[in-house]
Amino acid sequence: MADTTTWDAEALRSGYLRVRALTEDLAAPLSAEDQTVQSMPDVSPTKWHRAHTTWFFEIFVLEPFMAGYEVHHPVYRFLFNSYYEAVGDRYPRPRRGVVTRPGIAEVSLYRERVDEAMLQLLDAGPIPGDAAMLVELGQHHEQQHQELLLMDIKHVLSCNPVNPAYVPDKGVDAGAGGDGARPATTGWIVHDGGLVEIGHQGTGFGFDNEFPRHATYLEPFALSSGLVTCGDWLAFMDDGGYERPELWLSDGWATVGAEGWEAPLYWRRDDGDWRVFTLSGERPVEPREPVVHVSYYEADAYARWAGGRLPTEAEWEALAAVEDTPPGSSGGLLGSWALHPRAEAAHSLFGEVWQWTASAYSPYPGFHPAAGAVGEYNGKFMVGQYVLRGGCCVTPEDHVRASYRNFFPPSARWAFGGLRVAMDG
Amino acid sequence: MADTTTWDAEALRSGYLRVRALTEDLAAPLSAEDQTVQSMPDVSPTKWHRAHTTWFFEIFVLEPFMAGYEVHHPVYRFLFNSYYEAVGDRYPRPRRGVVTRPGIAEVSLYRERVDEAMLQLLDAGPIPGDAAMLVELGQHHEQQHQELLLMDIKHVLSCNPVNPAYVPDKGVDAGAGGDGARPATTGWIVHDGGLVEIGHQGTGFGFDNEFPRHATYLEPFALSSGLVTCGDWLAFMDDGGYERPELWLSDGWATVGAEGWEAPLYWRRDDGDWRVFTLSGERPVEPREPVVHVSYYEADAYARWAGGRLPTEAEWEALAAVEDTPPGSSGGLLGSWALHPRAEAAHSLFGEVWQWTASAYSPYPGFHPAAGAVGEYNGKFMVGQYVLRGGCCVTPEDHVRASYRNFFPPSARWAFGGLRVAMDG
Amino acid sequence: MADTTTWDAEALRSGYLRVRALTEDLAAPLSAEDQTVQSMPDVSPTKWHRAHTTWFFEIFVLEPFMAGYEVHHPVYRFLFNSYYEAVGDRYPRPRRGVVTRPGIAEVSLYRERVDEAMLQLLDAGPIPGDAAMLVELGQHHEQQHQELLLMDIKHVLSCNPVNPAYVPDKGVDAGAGGDGARPATTGWIVHDGGLVEIGHQGTGFGFDNEFPRHATYLEPFALSSGLVTCGDWLAFMDDGGYERPELWLSDGWATVGAEGWEAPLYWRRDDGDWRVFTLSGERPVEPREPVVHVSYYEADAYARWAGGRLPTEAEWEALAAVEDTPPGSSGGLLGSWALHPRAEAAHSLFGEVWQWTASAYSPYPGFHPAAGAVGEYNGKFMVGQYVLRGGCCVTPEDHVRASYRNFFPPSARWAFGGLRVAMDG
Amino acid sequence: MADTTTWDAEALRSGYLRVRALTEDLAAPLSAEDQTVQSMPDVSPTKWHRAHTTWFFEIFVLEPFMAGYEVHHPVYRFLFNSYYEAVGDRYPRPRRGVVTRPGIAEVSLYRERVDEAMLQLLDAGPIPGDAAMLVELGQHHEQQHQELLLMDIKHVLSCNPVNPAYVPDKGVDAGAGGDGARPATTGWIVHDGGLVEIGHQGTGFGFDNEFPRHATYLEPFALSSGLVTCGDWLAFMDDGGYERPELWLSDGWATVGAEGWEAPLYWRRDDGDWRVFTLSGERPVEPREPVVHVSYYEADAYARWAGGRLPTEAEWEALAAVEDTPPGSSGGLLGSWALHPRAEAAHSLFGEVWQWTASAYSPYPGFHPAAGAVGEYNGKFMVGQYVLRGGCCVTPEDHVRASYRNFFPPSARWAFGGLRVAMDG
Repeated sequence: MADTTTWDAEALRSGYLRVRALTEDLAAPLSAEDQTVQSMPDVSPTKWHRAHTTWFFEIFVLEPFMAGYEVHHPVYRFLFNSYYEAVGDRYPRPRRGVVTRPGIAEVSLYRERVDEAMLQLLDAGPIPGDAAMLVELGQHHEQQHQELLLMDIKHVLSCNPVNPAYVPDKGVDAGAGGDGARPATTGWIVHDGGLVEIGHQGTGFGFDNEFPRHATYLEPFALSSGLVTCGDWLAFMDDGGYERPELWLSDGWATVGAEGWEAPLYWRRDDGDWRVFTLSGERPVEPREPVVHVSYYEADAYARWAGGRLPTEAEWEALAAVEDTPPGSSGGLLGSWALHPRAEAAHSLFGEVWQWTASAYSPYPGFHPAAGAVGEYNGKFMVGQYVLRGGCCVTPEDHVRASYRNFFPPSARWAFGGLRVAMDG
Repeated sequence: MADTTTWDAEALRSGYLRVRALTEDLAAPLSAEDQTVQSMPDVSPTKWHRAHTTWFFEIFVLEPFMAGYEVHHPVYRFLFNSYYEAVGDRYPRPRRGVVTRPGIAEVSLYRERVDEAMLQLLDAGPIPGDAAMLVELGQHHEQQHQELLLMDIKHVLSCNPVNPAYVPDKGVDAGAGGDGARPATTGWIVHDGGLVEIGHQGTGFGFDNEFPRHATYLEPFALSSGLVTCGDWLAFMDDGGYERPELWLSDGWATVGAEGWEAPLYWRRDDGDWRVFTLSGERPVEPREPVVHVSYYEADAYARWAGGRLPTEAEWEALAAVEDTPPGSSGGLLGSWALHPRAEAAHSLFGEVWQWTASAYSPYPGFHPAAGAVGEYNGKFMVGQYVLRGGCCVTPEDHVRASYRNFFPPSARWAFGGLRVAMDG
Repeated sequence: MADTTTWDAEALRSGYLRVRALTEDLAAPLSAEDQTVQSMPDVSPTKWHRAHTTWFFEIFVLEPFMAGYEVHHPVYRFLFNSYYEAVGDRYPRPRRGVVTRPGIAEVSLYRERVDEAMLQLLDAGPIPGDAAMLVELGQHHEQQHQELLLMDIKHVLSCNPVNPAYVPDKGVDAGAGGDGARPATTGWIVHDGGLVEIGHQGTGFGFDNEFPRHATYLEPFALSSGLVTCGDWLAFMDDGGYERPELWLSDGWATVGAEGWEAPLYWRRDDGDWRVFTLSGERPVEPREPVVHVSYYEADAYARWAGGRLPTEAEWEALAAVEDTPPGSSGGLLGSWALHPRAEAAHSLFGEVWQWTASAYSPYPGFHPAAGAVGEYNGKFMVGQYVLRGGCCVTPEDHVRASYRNFFPPSARWAFGGLRVAMDG
Repeated sequence: MADTTTWDAEALRSGYLRVRALTEDLAAPLSAEDQTVQSMPDVSPTKWHRAHTTWFFEIFVLEPFMAGYEVHHPVYRFLFNSYYEAVGDRYPRPRRGVVTRPGIAEVSLYRERVDEAMLQLLDAGPIPGDAAMLVELGQHHEQQHQELLLMDIKHVLSCNPVNPAYVPDKGVDAGAGGDGARPATTGWIVHDGGLVEIGHQGTGFGFDNEFPRHATYLEPFALSSGLVTCGDWLAFMDDGGYERPELWLSDGWATVGAEGWEAPLYWRRDDGDWRVFTLSGERPVEPREPVVHVSYYEADAYARWAGGRLPTEAEWEALAAVEDTPPGSSGGLLGSWALHPRAEAAHSLFGEVWQWTASAYSPYPGFHPAAGAVGEYNGKFMVGQYVLRGGCCVTPEDHVRASYRNFFPPSARWAFGGLRVAMDG
């Protein structure tokens, strides 16, 4: 998936160690009980994430490239396979949360043993390019699971009526001189349209779904300079946003009715005031913060209500490539101090919340999946989902770039999804 | 939706009569029992189609534009509303098949009364442009339901173990000098790519979803000159097409398992031979006929197996606009002699089977739904569906044009869906 | 199932003709559309009832006992088998309503052909005792379906928002000098308990589940002399009957919540007044009429609210055998003039409404199912159902006797189920 | 529920301590992960059992009877309420397994705090009779949950593909001189029938559902002296037991098809041999052991196949009261050495496996639930379930008596259900 053919062995090694350590850091505040539960079919247990990311290195790197390697436990091949048909059968996904053994101690041991073997392999001299590419892919794969781990544990913790916190509440820093009720979406970034190129530019890592870079034609358009905020969303709600079918896609309106939606996920009305569950526990909704945990259906309805529409992914990328700069590649989480979108950062195209686009997740012209089992990584999911762009407060920095394509079904709310509004030019 | 501002009153009147008459002709071979049943939630009863298309004229033309008009029956407003939220509540769609009254005689009376009123309105002198536009829209709407009526009744009849025929079997005319087993998809139509325009060209009727005409950029590609045939499909099946996960989108593979698919809808294995249920009853599968009643998932898997992919709708339209000519606008069904795709017509881009494209059903850049309740016609369904192009053997001729966008969910098989294969150029 | 070994050929013949004619009389007011629909899985289409009762004679009498008989249509064996595993496969029960062919005309022809053959058989001289027993069973079987036909079509018609009537409304005859609001359940019939005998006494027809007659021990008890009325039920509702969990069995309370029950089936609140759908269309609830279309769960909750309980079937039968006389055996429906329970008859133990008992439907001590396929008639349903006693306004008179055991699941409401209250003595 | 009015304070205290300690002993081998999971809606997590039994004492004893007592945590009232409507809302039962906090440490603390308060209450001098009755009830309640805890954790552990053991395997002790394949059900215990009394005799504790003792009339019958064994069951399976609809109740046969049953729960075919998962892990099926983990449907089908039927609960109790003696009242588990039914004990009426009876779970004549919230304990479940008698290898000894009524739905298999066969005399 990356275009590089020579590899910096030391960078590969240090990257490996850094990624592996962060996963364990993220799991550290969680009890064995927390790490075991699957609160809905889309969610995976923390200990499953820890084991599956390990499995990825074991099955795709150690087994094929390390002579004499024997798998840590024969049942793990089956138990921690996510969706790779080429690797064989899997434990049923919706049942991941009924597996109690291996427990967290055995998962830690699994991680240690695989790490030892990986370092042995990496330290034994140059590895083939294929192997290096898979080690790099495994790191980015584990980073994706770092974000999923946080999304998932947020959902798990929200099911506990005792209102637990994953991390301590650092307080809401609403920024200087702010006016809490003022929507932030008043400015616009304008694009003149025309033929543009989108897709990965070829330097650094990219997933197969970002390739090939290709031309696409845009009409003139504008994108709101700020993210839609909770204050904006409250105005939408006050104006009957969840009660007016004319604002909604037909499937969206059916979902509103079936699920009883009347606010974003994790919002709860308490004596007339709205409160929100965060990774630091529940607290009042802060109007100036970007809204998060809305579905595509809700984002689309909001944009229609606001007189606009969602941008396409090409529009978003064409702007992002020239208007903003990704925050870096430290490998840390973008918003690690808070794990919640910040009011003062609502104008960055990158980070805070993933931004729903109007684009169904489809292959780029000329797309070819990677060879081998990892070809199942992205391509086979290209139906029934929509693209989100930008990264969010729980995304590792390495996953923030103009060409990065995240994707979820239109009804999904447990991802950190928010939005910007676009207008025809 | 049409761009015309002056109307040919006589054409409007004769078109109205022609469309209304064909619906009744299509229902004529069906008993009261046949016309009442809903064999699955997607299917509507024949008598519902007959009443709903009448309701469309009553609610959108007569009520607003004919002074003193009183609705035929107050309950019908509720009973025959399909999905127009702006008109009010509806009888639940999956329960349409439990309504026995009004029966077919009362539905005939409803049609007659509304026809009388419509002719009175049309004959009373020029009607406003808005009204004329809605009369024209109502005709095209009813033509869509003519195709739906046939799709739906085919499904209904297929549930009868006595193997009924809607129309007599006229025999399979396999064409002259044919070689039954040879796949027809060997030739290719090549396109050099570049900036093209797609969308309705402005002359004649078009639905709102075909507008606005706009530029889009294509890479070079080729499209198979013939439709994929049953012989091709048998080769796919013989090669394990329904048993190899690597050929399928993930959702498609899950559907294959959940539904137990092993052949197109309406195919049945009988002592090793495949037979197919048609509107003329069941008969052997004919290898040279275009395959039909496959889902997007199956079409996509086939294309991958064949080493290609599905075309995008822009690719299809760019070719269709220059390579072929729609068959006319008589208002009759394209394939009325047989109601089944014909082997000898497999090279026409238009007709025989709707061709799945790789394009999710999305608004064109600058799309705006029509004003008023009919704005719900298309736009609100632009999620979770894929575009099909070309028309099929049960499509009225007026619905065959290069810019026409049909759409169904990726798992739908009861539409007359087939495919062509595309290749990167 | 009957204990008779000699048969009155003429009675068998005239009984056959009488039963067969009544079924057709009951279907006569119904259109082809009405006769085709299945409004929920428990309901069967009218034309299915007409065909299935015919199938019963064809498969169990003509095929085995009439030399050279050939079945009317080979597919009917499969299509009109209800649940006889010994006869082979069946068309899936919940899909009976999607079968449009044979239509009502072909079903009429089927009935005629089988009637001709049956009369030929019966007129050809004495038939074996086995055959005679099956002819008699077939008549009682068809009578059961006469009641089911009316229960089922009532549900079908109730789904039509045009408020249709199966028979004309003859008006509510509330009886002389009545006080509409006064509950009728004020008197009690007392039983001293002790060892009693229940079960069929051996004279006349009985189903296998009524045998053998056997001893059972009763504690002293009392049974309300009148049926619970709509007025009683309104008092229960006004006292929070559907909102107080302490009145309900746990499964019943869960069903109240899941189904949103707040009144008997077919009741609808209209501007504060309760109206009820009957086979003569909708009209106001009449407080002095026996309440009907309540489930076991509701009957049980009502009895608890009233300070009593439901009677066991042994208690009911012990009283009925001495306190009342079945209305006759004309073969006509009990309440044929109205098809709705009558206020003035609320003190008869037999008729008006089936009375829920506290007894799970279980085999009597020493029970043995009949030999052959008809052994599947009753025994295999002896789990998960409750016994009702007495007969109702749409029951054929022949089905009214002290030992008759009707049975339905505790959540069923579309049967004509009502209740009496019992008290410990 | 007990008839005693004076209480032995010391016995109450020591009983309390003994019961509370055993629960903790049973949980001791289980990890935090094991204790958190709910493998199906019927199962509750171990830590929930530990907390709920504590809640019972807190809500029903401490709150009403200990002056100044404040609940340990306000959310626990809601979280650990099982089904007591009178206490208020509950956390949804099927979601018990997504609660991670309180974790096992906090549950341990909850138990300690409530134990301290209970001892303070019990040591402060005589408590009212009402309170004493509830303390005793709470002990028996906790003993029921000890059995449930083991049933439930067996199901949880069985979902782990690593084949875990709750306790070490002590080996199968098949008894001396046994013939492994010989069915044990060859002897019969005969009863002459007549008027008998069943129900609790009044000495010692009993649940409300065992009262009042009352007369019932029995026909002569016989009961197999031994439990049905795995060898018997293999013969049933070999004879097509799971493939012959004529052996099954209709609902049972539907369940066989829907669930794909072909052997008891926890049996797995491995290369032609049957293996069984136990609380000591998986091992070969031992033909002489009593069969266990069969549903009512299966027990009923087996009895029919064997030419008999299931006994009624009155038959069982009438025999048990004279033919056998309960094993004692140490409070320990009956089969604590193995937690699996033993071949050599298959002739005891008490213990090894709960024996399905043909009796639907109904109130005894004159039954009245206990006053107050604990009146919800038994009565409201008296629908849709069948009675099992005798106790099993994971039942506390105190729960083994002739009048004890256990009950489960007819499809339940995770209880330790087996059977004896009865015959008409």
